[in-house]
Amino acid sequence: MSDLASSGAGFIAIVTLGTEGPEVQRELVELLVKDVEEWVRHCPGFIAANYHASVDGRHVVNYAQWRDEAAYRDSFRDNPRAGELRATITAMPGVTAPSMVGYTLVRTVPAA
Amino acid sequence: MSDLASSGAGFIAIVTLGTEGPEVQRELVELLVKDVEEWVRHCPGFIAANYHASVDGRHVVNYAQWRDEAAYRDSFRDNPRAGELRATITAMPGVTAPSMVGYTLVRTVPAA
Repeated sequence: MSDLASSGAGFIAIVTLGTEGPEVQRELVELLVKDVEEWVRHCPGFIAANYHASVDGRHVVNYAQWRDEAAYRDSFRDNPRAGELRATITAMPGVTAPSMVGYTLVRTVPAA
Repeated sequence: MSDLASSGAGFIAIVTLGTEGPEVQRELVELLVKDVEEWVRHCPGFIAANYHASVDGRHVVNYAQWRDEAAYRDSFRDNPRAGELRATITAMPGVTAPSMVGYTLVRTVPAA
């Protein structure tokens, strides 16, 4: 089951970061997971964060599912460590600063 | 349930296209869904295609789930209309050519 359409996510934040290789990808994912486990997963409207490492070692993507955009915005605004986390990421050698685009899931086509 | 981790997808192709607004987003998604329904969903190893429209109207993302990278590559190589589809997309006013990055899902953190 793929099940994206039944996740209840009315807003998906796709966060993309550039990385210089597999080792940096692993370090970065560990750092991001730590923040999500300590803070974000407890926020109202959070559904799941899904960390992806590109096969070529050059990207990390978080496909983050939220009930709606307001819940996402509120959690970000309220996170006491948001500024610190961003500073840590920006200072990591071999990592480029995150970019975020907000989406809604409009169509899903499963296997025949 | 969000369920990305239990989808069985060993390879995720994230395809991103630029769009000039919501109307072009809708047209583009219809075009892409048509191709997936006619060809791709019948390919071995295809799990699901998930089309996302950005809230700002500037992007369309297909989060495409495959069993493994070889299945993805085979389907693309074998698709009799792949070249034609790409030409149609490239010729659409207000659409920029697709970029694809291949990923594996490495960590999922659900709500607490």
